[in-house]
Amino acid sequence: MKIVVQKFGGTSVADTERISAIAERIAATCADGYSVVVVVSAMAGETDRLLTLAKAFAEQPRGRELDVLLSTGEQVTIALLAMALNKIGMSAVSYTGSQVQILTDKVHNKARIVRIDDANVLGDLERGRVVVVAGFQGVDEAGNITTLGRGGSDTTAVALAAALKADECQIYTDVDGVYTTDPRIVPEARRLERVTYEEMLEMASLGAKVLQIRSVEFASKYKVNLRVLSSFESGQGTLITAEENIMEQALISGVTLNRDEAQLVLTGVPDRPGVASNILGPVAAANIEVDMILQNTGADGATDFTFTVHRNDYDQALEILERLAIEMNARGVTGDKTIVKISIVGVGMRSHAGIAARMFRALADESINIRMISTSEIKISVVVDEKYSELGVRSLHSEFGLENELESN
Amino acid sequence: MKIVVQKFGGTSVADTERISAIAERIAATCADGYSVVVVVSAMAGETDRLLTLAKAFAEQPRGRELDVLLSTGEQVTIALLAMALNKIGMSAVSYTGSQVQILTDKVHNKARIVRIDDANVLGDLERGRVVVVAGFQGVDEAGNITTLGRGGSDTTAVALAAALKADECQIYTDVDGVYTTDPRIVPEARRLERVTYEEMLEMASLGAKVLQIRSVEFASKYKVNLRVLSSFESGQGTLITAEENIMEQALISGVTLNRDEAQLVLTGVPDRPGVASNILGPVAAANIEVDMILQNTGADGATDFTFTVHRNDYDQALEILERLAIEMNARGVTGDKTIVKISIVGVGMRSHAGIAARMFRALADESINIRMISTSEIKISVVVDEKYSELGVRSLHSEFGLENELESN
Repeated sequence: MKIVVQKFGGTSVADTERISAIAERIAATCADGYSVVVVVSAMAGETDRLLTLAKAFAEQPRGRELDVLLSTGEQVTIALLAMALNKIGMSAVSYTGSQVQILTDKVHNKARIVRIDDANVLGDLERGRVVVVAGFQGVDEAGNITTLGRGGSDTTAVALAAALKADECQIYTDVDGVYTTDPRIVPEARRLERVTYEEMLEMASLGAKVLQIRSVEFASKYKVNLRVLSSFESGQGTLITAEENIMEQALISGVTLNRDEAQLVLTGVPDRPGVASNILGPVAAANIEVDMILQNTGADGATDFTFTVHRNDYDQALEILERLAIEMNARGVTGDKTIVKISIVGVGMRSHAGIAARMFRALADESINIRMISTSEIKISVVVDEKYSELGVRSLHSEFGLENELESN
Repeated sequence: MKIVVQKFGGTSVADTERISAIAERIAATCADGYSVVVVVSAMAGETDRLLTLAKAFAEQPRGRELDVLLSTGEQVTIALLAMALNKIGMSAVSYTGSQVQILTDKVHNKARIVRIDDANVLGDLERGRVVVVAGFQGVDEAGNITTLGRGGSDTTAVALAAALKADECQIYTDVDGVYTTDPRIVPEARRLERVTYEEMLEMASLGAKVLQIRSVEFASKYKVNLRVLSSFESGQGTLITAEENIMEQALISGVTLNRDEAQLVLTGVPDRPGVASNILGPVAAANIEVDMILQNTGADGATDFTFTVHRNDYDQALEILERLAIEMNARGVTGDKTIVKISIVGVGMRSHAGIAARMFRALADESINIRMISTSEIKISVVVDEKYSELGVRSLHSEFGLENELESN
């Protein structure tokens, strides 16, 4: 039995017409000889409608009851999609998370999947039925309904694919795949045929919001072939898979741009052990997440301590630093919200030297000043002035030849 | 532990304000020292909204999937009511039918309750929690979601009250109790303090649409004290209970009027064995329910066969009779849609002779011609011209002194 798990999000099931269109697509997959498990989200707008009702009683309703409420959203969709499949002559059966059952821990609103009982689903597939499963929801050991939190339906799909040892887990979205960079910035941006889990994780965390990070982590852990496709157009999409499944690996797979950060600098901090923790401690205590960090000790024995935070946290972080500057007897505080982070991502850089140098030279050629640098095994990020956003992305995309099919760089 | 089950229908939970009002009412019952189990319906309009979605795929969707869809309606309400109770400081927990669990047979859309597992509910009550249960729904042995059909939430409430051996099952509606007759016809109509199951069943089937017949049958079978009260006003409502719990039993408890019937007569049918079945067979085959039946053999050996059907079925029944009249060599067919059925109901008539005579005399005194008569152990019904509806009801209400408190007739 060749099993495919197909996941459709809220916009793909926004109304009965779209649900009918999805039913046709599922039928086509069945006609190709696959056994299909479908995972669906709540119809677009439904979760917000339910949340508005809940807000009448509490800004933050009790987790257990919120899960009972929100889980109805997907339950409506599974019933309707099963009906739509019946209408075109397909045998179909719907399952709530609790019916499957998708066993989770007890953490309401952001539960983690512990185990999936695939007996019922497999039995139905063997009988030739399409199995329609409610995404985003599960059940704890005591029988309480749980939900998985943001992006939960993607996670349900990947977890089911892992449990059923599916050939592929297909995530249908409003884009037709993962691109080498944002096509609105670089018209030559190319859809990637394949990309590794690691690269996808870096790109997702850097701002390419195609998939929830959590579902990619899950896919990586259980080696699930994950494909991103468009709900509305045909096409192969992008396969996210293990490195060994990608024969010809490009040096660099993508260039990402993150406009959400801001930079803060505490200048002239007397250099003593514990400077970093003295500064970042109060910032973390205020629940502000720090991304890039750079510490720089000058000849005078004073340190400039630079870091980036989300722009929404900028004002609050600035206040904290101004207080710290006095306490720590620092020279002063500067900050800048008009910066962006540009990154290149690719597993190829593990085995090739000189990628960073090429990146910095390409930016220098365009007279783009680099303000911060951060690297990981498969990623190099730089902070530059916001005005260089497009120029920076374009020059790097071109430098690494990402517009060319099967580019060997 | 003194347990009360309170059931609130769709109009009582139509919006978040009404849900808040119900939470206050529940809190008041708890303050009186009761442990409270609440059964709720879907918010008014919600079931219709869901049905409209389903109709996009099938006029009559598959029962299993329809149940998955419709059961979300009550699930939304239980979560919201639990939140509303939390908001005013009450500890509360919601249960779907499947979570309770309310085990039913496999007949989707009109399942029957087989067994209720009260362990979880009792445990929560002992911990001082209000337990909020989704009405109308259950689960079969295989874990499929089922619904109980029309009036199902009343049945859920009564079944829970029976399982939990509750002191009382309170059904909150838009009327403040059961009346001796329709107050729009007789302004002096009086709310009954108590009425027996048998009387309530007769009144319900005769057109007093306060409670679903099924839930009264259930209450009668398991001797559950059932109270009908208003969701919007305070008051004692009407207690529906066993005959032995009613000390001073009135002869007659109520006068009912049914405007939904029509009369048909097949005249001059040659009298042979099997006339009734020859006539009613084809009517039943057309799925038409027959209420009153009267067969009258004249001196000439020919029979007039008269019966009543629902007005909606009148035209179809007339067609059938016209065909039968030819086949059976009858004289002809007449019919009348302008008739009504007036009934008096009361367990007291079991032990008192002469009730029928008093009824017929009272109608004769108003020159009301009786066209058909039918009796049961605790009910006498007459068919009269529609124009006598109000006059007939008023004269009987007055004849049996129903406007007087503690009337001994």
